[in-house]
Amino acid sequence: MHDDDEVGGRVTLATVAKEAGVSMPTVSKVLNGRSDVSRATRTKVERLLETHGYRRRGQSVSRSPLIEIVFHELDSVWSMELIRGVENVAKENRATVALTESGTRHTPAPDWLPGVLQRRPLGVVLVFSALPKDVKRRLRAAAIPFVVIDPAGDPDPDVPSVGSANWAGGLAATRHLTDLGHERVAIITGPEDMLCSLARLDGYRSALALAGLETDPRLTRFGDFHVRGGFTHAVELLDGPDRPTAIFAGSDLQALGVLEAARVRGLRVPEDLSVVGYDDVPPAQWSSPPLTTVHQPLRHMAEEAARMLLRPDAPGTAAQRIELATHLVVRQSTAPPERA
Amino acid sequence: MHDDDEVGGRVTLATVAKEAGVSMPTVSKVLNGRSDVSRATRTKVERLLETHGYRRRGQSVSRSPLIEIVFHELDSVWSMELIRGVENVAKENRATVALTESGTRHTPAPDWLPGVLQRRPLGVVLVFSALPKDVKRRLRAAAIPFVVIDPAGDPDPDVPSVGSANWAGGLAATRHLTDLGHERVAIITGPEDMLCSLARLDGYRSALALAGLETDPRLTRFGDFHVRGGFTHAVELLDGPDRPTAIFAGSDLQALGVLEAARVRGLRVPEDLSVVGYDDVPPAQWSSPPLTTVHQPLRHMAEEAARMLLRPDAPGTAAQRIELATHLVVRQSTAPPERA
Repeated sequence: MHDDDEVGGRVTLATVAKEAGVSMPTVSKVLNGRSDVSRATRTKVERLLETHGYRRRGQSVSRSPLIEIVFHELDSVWSMELIRGVENVAKENRATVALTESGTRHTPAPDWLPGVLQRRPLGVVLVFSALPKDVKRRLRAAAIPFVVIDPAGDPDPDVPSVGSANWAGGLAATRHLTDLGHERVAIITGPEDMLCSLARLDGYRSALALAGLETDPRLTRFGDFHVRGGFTHAVELLDGPDRPTAIFAGSDLQALGVLEAARVRGLRVPEDLSVVGYDDVPPAQWSSPPLTTVHQPLRHMAEEAARMLLRPDAPGTAAQRIELATHLVVRQSTAPPERA
Repeated sequence: MHDDDEVGGRVTLATVAKEAGVSMPTVSKVLNGRSDVSRATRTKVERLLETHGYRRRGQSVSRSPLIEIVFHELDSVWSMELIRGVENVAKENRATVALTESGTRHTPAPDWLPGVLQRRPLGVVLVFSALPKDVKRRLRAAAIPFVVIDPAGDPDPDVPSVGSANWAGGLAATRHLTDLGHERVAIITGPEDMLCSLARLDGYRSALALAGLETDPRLTRFGDFHVRGGFTHAVELLDGPDRPTAIFAGSDLQALGVLEAARVRGLRVPEDLSVVGYDDVPPAQWSSPPLTTVHQPLRHMAEEAARMLLRPDAPGTAAQRIELATHLVVRQSTAPPERA
């Protein structure tokens, strides 16, 4: 795949070694993530590699036929869709997927990085929003392309990323409900500190305004993207005065919690309550009733990210941003409101 | 991790080269899965490697800190649990998970094998029952340990494997229903050609016999382990004469299909129909109502398989078989039958 790398690589490394005033083996050690190099030397060499890497990225070292995907946390539905996307592209390119769970909440623990540097993959797909400066510098120094899949809708301007259209998704979900005739529409969006939650909420508000409806602040909730949060907020919404006839849940898992809340309160879906999810992960098709939801193209997003890595002009420097469209999938959890 | 490998390895390779009447580089090529060796030479060298490998397995070549997991098909719920198990053990051992989807129905396509031979992982976890002779021989020749996770309950006597107690699981699920007082208990087990389906069916029959109940052949169905199969069979069972008051579905996905069939037929779960799943994958907790189900310890099975690979006496020859226990998890989809 990169048959010319060796030649191009050696020229660069010799130049860097000369400019840094160190030996070629020392530059190699830095490139390979070895620990037996002083911190000062490593930083000096990395900075030079980064500079030269800008011009030679993707061609400066020989590569293992691996595409890495790094998660902060493997969860069962989201992660699998992303893995499948990367695996599709890996298979097309006779490469293998290497998978790492970094084990922290939003950013990767630094301990995954030396492994990546040693393995010299074709590239790295990172599934989280915030990427420490140090990580960016070291990946660029080693000329390893990387792309962030940005589920939170909060792209680092300095990093190439793939996201999807959260505002438009929130708008489409809510318009579907107002088009059916719902006037009391609640939203359980995601956590307050994630931009995707705010974008979906703004889409919801705009759809209500387009339908000539006021936004009732009592009908706006911030969830946790999990079943439990959807359940708890839905029970409160259904127990309140003048209960909503429709709930736009900010994720499919939250929507499953809403279905359970409806069951516990003796309400039928969709006859007594319409429910719209978000994501369109497989459980949305398996629920009872199957969920109307906003399709977030997770697998496609992962495929795009992996393809970006494999391009001759693979990113790592220029902050490309690809945003894929979302669209509504109508199944059986929504219907016109029954007139009381 | 295998610092002494190089020395031990070279002795073996020299011996093999001599016995095969080929050069050392040729033996290396065979070991590394290279294609520029004649088929006859490859087979001769592999056979000799296999013989010597029996005595030196796990020590004859240096290894990448990779644990491979090979699926015939990545599905979203099962596969993720297995990946998480392997990832847990990889993390403990500072190794990385490499993931391959072989893309055929029950056995791996041969094209994944050269990649594994080239990468020289610490070991390979294979998620399928039937393993071609050729694959076994080549993995053994390369002294790459492998373990099969055997979801179908049909272990190859020649291969180390990890499974779980299917008969006991079927018995526990059905006993729970007869203990609640159900007398019309149906089963939708898995495909007829998988031993795990038959083991669960036999557990069901034994539980009915223990409760003094006859097995009604009209209440026995073979499904496909997917939501659609559960739905279709459940609709037929519910539309039949003298409908069952409880259904033991052979998988959680089939159980989700049964829930949807109940909804479509206007039956409440558990008041009008009790439902028991199998597997206890995450969607079992997210359904409405949450599913009573048989916990199959998928993550733990994957951890055991990965640990077997990393033992100094890693398998590959002796046919070890580990069978982990299953147990019933009671949630809200089961209740005593309502008396008509």
